[in-house]
Amino acid sequence: MDQPVSRRTFLHMVGAVGGSTAIYQVALGMGLMPEIRHVQRPDIAPLARGQRKSVVILGAGIAGLTAAYELDRKGYEVQVLEASHRAGGRNFTVRGGDLIDEAGQPQICRFDPEPHLYFNAGPARIPGHHTALLGYCRELGVELAPFINDNRNAWVQDDAMFGGRPIRNREYIADTRGFIAELMVKGLDAAQLDEPLTQADYAQLLEYLRQFGELDAEFKYRGSTRAGLVAHDYTQPEQRKQPLDFRQLLQSRFMYLMSFGEGDDQSAMMMEPVGGMDRIVTAFMSRVGHRVRTHAPVQAIRLQEKGVEVAYRHKGQERIVRADFCLNSIPTQLLAGIEHNFPPDYAGVFSAIPRGKLFKIGFQAKERFWEREGIYGGISWTMQDIMQVWYPAHGIHRPKGVLLGAYTFSEDAGEKFAGLTHQQRLDLAIQQGEKIHPGYRGYIENGVSICWHRMNHMLGCASQWSEPLRTQYFKRLQQPVGHHYMIGDQASYHPGWQEGAIHSAFHALTDIDQRVRNVALVAA
Amino acid sequence: MDQPVSRRTFLHMVGAVGGSTAIYQVALGMGLMPEIRHVQRPDIAPLARGQRKSVVILGAGIAGLTAAYELDRKGYEVQVLEASHRAGGRNFTVRGGDLIDEAGQPQICRFDPEPHLYFNAGPARIPGHHTALLGYCRELGVELAPFINDNRNAWVQDDAMFGGRPIRNREYIADTRGFIAELMVKGLDAAQLDEPLTQADYAQLLEYLRQFGELDAEFKYRGSTRAGLVAHDYTQPEQRKQPLDFRQLLQSRFMYLMSFGEGDDQSAMMMEPVGGMDRIVTAFMSRVGHRVRTHAPVQAIRLQEKGVEVAYRHKGQERIVRADFCLNSIPTQLLAGIEHNFPPDYAGVFSAIPRGKLFKIGFQAKERFWEREGIYGGISWTMQDIMQVWYPAHGIHRPKGVLLGAYTFSEDAGEKFAGLTHQQRLDLAIQQGEKIHPGYRGYIENGVSICWHRMNHMLGCASQWSEPLRTQYFKRLQQPVGHHYMIGDQASYHPGWQEGAIHSAFHALTDIDQRVRNVALVAA
Repeated sequence: MDQPVSRRTFLHMVGAVGGSTAIYQVALGMGLMPEIRHVQRPDIAPLARGQRKSVVILGAGIAGLTAAYELDRKGYEVQVLEASHRAGGRNFTVRGGDLIDEAGQPQICRFDPEPHLYFNAGPARIPGHHTALLGYCRELGVELAPFINDNRNAWVQDDAMFGGRPIRNREYIADTRGFIAELMVKGLDAAQLDEPLTQADYAQLLEYLRQFGELDAEFKYRGSTRAGLVAHDYTQPEQRKQPLDFRQLLQSRFMYLMSFGEGDDQSAMMMEPVGGMDRIVTAFMSRVGHRVRTHAPVQAIRLQEKGVEVAYRHKGQERIVRADFCLNSIPTQLLAGIEHNFPPDYAGVFSAIPRGKLFKIGFQAKERFWEREGIYGGISWTMQDIMQVWYPAHGIHRPKGVLLGAYTFSEDAGEKFAGLTHQQRLDLAIQQGEKIHPGYRGYIENGVSICWHRMNHMLGCASQWSEPLRTQYFKRLQQPVGHHYMIGDQASYHPGWQEGAIHSAFHALTDIDQRVRNVALVAA
Repeated sequence: MDQPVSRRTFLHMVGAVGGSTAIYQVALGMGLMPEIRHVQRPDIAPLARGQRKSVVILGAGIAGLTAAYELDRKGYEVQVLEASHRAGGRNFTVRGGDLIDEAGQPQICRFDPEPHLYFNAGPARIPGHHTALLGYCRELGVELAPFINDNRNAWVQDDAMFGGRPIRNREYIADTRGFIAELMVKGLDAAQLDEPLTQADYAQLLEYLRQFGELDAEFKYRGSTRAGLVAHDYTQPEQRKQPLDFRQLLQSRFMYLMSFGEGDDQSAMMMEPVGGMDRIVTAFMSRVGHRVRTHAPVQAIRLQEKGVEVAYRHKGQERIVRADFCLNSIPTQLLAGIEHNFPPDYAGVFSAIPRGKLFKIGFQAKERFWEREGIYGGISWTMQDIMQVWYPAHGIHRPKGVLLGAYTFSEDAGEKFAGLTHQQRLDLAIQQGEKIHPGYRGYIENGVSICWHRMNHMLGCASQWSEPLRTQYFKRLQQPVGHHYMIGDQASYHPGWQEGAIHSAFHALTDIDQRVRNVALVAA
């Protein structure tokens, strides 16, 4: 066997010995595969026999549950204190009978008790590179299905164009691209390029633009089948739509949203758990539910020389937990109001980071009217306060459906909805939805509104870290103080996403594991 | 009640009286909703008591099954003759144990008997505007789930760029768009516009381009998070990838494919039946299976004055059926070899229409290695013969998966694969797949190849209608001769799609219904 082996033969040999995971690792090592680097799930050392370490975790959201799960299975004594009546934090799937615990105006959801009638009031989608979260889905048996963001059959509505008449997403996109490509071809030979292109490059560029805009032989845009046909009757010759008026298209601020589905975290393919996002919470709880105490709001956090003491209320009494470590996912702006002995610079971070005011509405519709419009999932966009209407891609063709009737990222719209009663919010969302779906009101049976910055024990959505805030405060928040660690999506570079929450827990767990190993080393 | 009512109040009143379908219809009528026109499902008059009409249907594909279902439930005597061993035609989901009946080299599929291990060898996706097919899914209880075409995490591989190294779809798209947008801004003020834009339009156009390419404040492209991050570690500041070399990107013929997912029939959101495309066949067969005779190849079709006579072989014997009407979905190129008494101009169409040579491979993989690469569905593209690799979006995180290892539209590649043995085809597809997934060979357990133009009773995929052929022949093929109608996707403006097949049946059924009604009228 002195003959040189080919790269493929070598991989094959490795496969025969180590199985295909070995092939994968070797291929990565040989530089054959473009690697994507991901955060490492901490490989926490199991505690030795007789070794005792305790951790108190504040908040049973995704960060807290991740930490509890990882520590519990390595022999740590874990206790999770959750202020509200439920685990999950902003991972919250609303079903008939559920309480939406808004300060001052609690609501009970009145959806029918059907498995497909649920509403993900918090996170609702998972991109394929959120490997930590997906890893837990795999490990804990959470079934996943595709989630749809982009639907070219959905609507775009903006009072600034076409008198407010909704147009199909596909028309907006195809016609805008067509005109833009045509304009570009006109301007192209005049372009002053930094790096001169060869004649061949230039020809390729023209071809790219032709494909991109679906231009004709003279590089003119004369409409595109991508915009949809006048009629979907395949007994007849295909008939293209007339292109829309380009200047009207340009009036729309929708152009800002056209790129939404291009984002690293929003582009296809996305996923969702079958049956609701809180299947993830349920899966974690099946492992560590016995470690979680709900209705247990924290009253005080006291750093001690060898650990942390936490006071909380439960069943009318103040109770005390002492632990070697504390992992704290309480929203920073709430922490500011809790008794503590943190150093002032650390505590100063808490009130410095503003919170988002994301707002969502879920409607139960008595008919899946959107399916009659050729829409089976995805998002319609409007420049009104409600901003989005989402259609469920699950439960297709069943008698009823729960759709998202509003999802606004805008602070102004968030404030506007917050100032209304529950019923007023639904009415406003219906009124605005009528511009997209005439007759909308007639289909809506009931609804819920989630105003994250008014939810008890929350009072805010994701942290709004600006670049200056990051520079000034992030490291301080991320590093522990004594035996106390801040976790949660707030303590990550990806707030508002479960993956950020998990990574924050990984960061703290890695550090704790290292400290525990070092102590064990010294003791040995 | 003499007060004028608002439009909304009016719609509300209508809803109270007629239910929400009434609202929808009235909204359409008022011009509030942009209507999409669809072919009408024929409203076939039920036969009167004692009235007898017989129809013989040739071919149990989607067109034939549609016709059988519609006629059977209206009291027609229906018989379906199917040459092969199975119903469905090109709607063919391959599972372990299934026969792939290729001329000269039959194969038996060796996939494991798990419900998620199947391969849609023919149609595999349904767009939201295929309302006829979706209507049957709804009516017959075929459960649907999203299907994924575009996956930005999937790969693009082309020897013409980056030395053949695969790059992520999202990198190709984001970087190409960025550079194109930058170039366009440079050329823009020099562009000679047919219709001068105002200063405000111009500003909007620049903003569009900035959004489109994710350009910086100086309208330069300096990389984009849309291309993915260097690492997905949210404990660290976000780090953008360096943009790829634009001239290399331009070398790739992948630009032709970048617009694939923009097409009317390919853009998100797409769907597929849960459990395999042939759930649709199963659903039809549950209603009309007793009318279908398999292993019944047609030998002759004879037009008669008051009907059609069909001779076929079954269990070694020639048999004769006479019927009032014949609906014929036999592929035109096979018809040319069957005895008939068609007028020469009609028969002349049969041999004039070429057939596609689409080719697919399905592989069973022992691990879902693509999921470790962040790919959970969608398509990788390569300029090699295999052209595409599809990843299943169902069965996520299960131990094994069936992926599509080749799907070529190209006639040359179709011929190339056709000339190989089954095993050689799989080997070639594995060898080419290695360029996308190093170590690929180690994951593949077994596979099947479907060469549509070599399948018995088929010998071709979709009809390849060119514009001149349409002009010359289509009307002739679509119109009946006597009591004989050609149906199937071949007799539609949408060959290769089930919706086209259904519309062809609708067209024939509408005509038959009209003739039967007219006769009944004369008789009355």
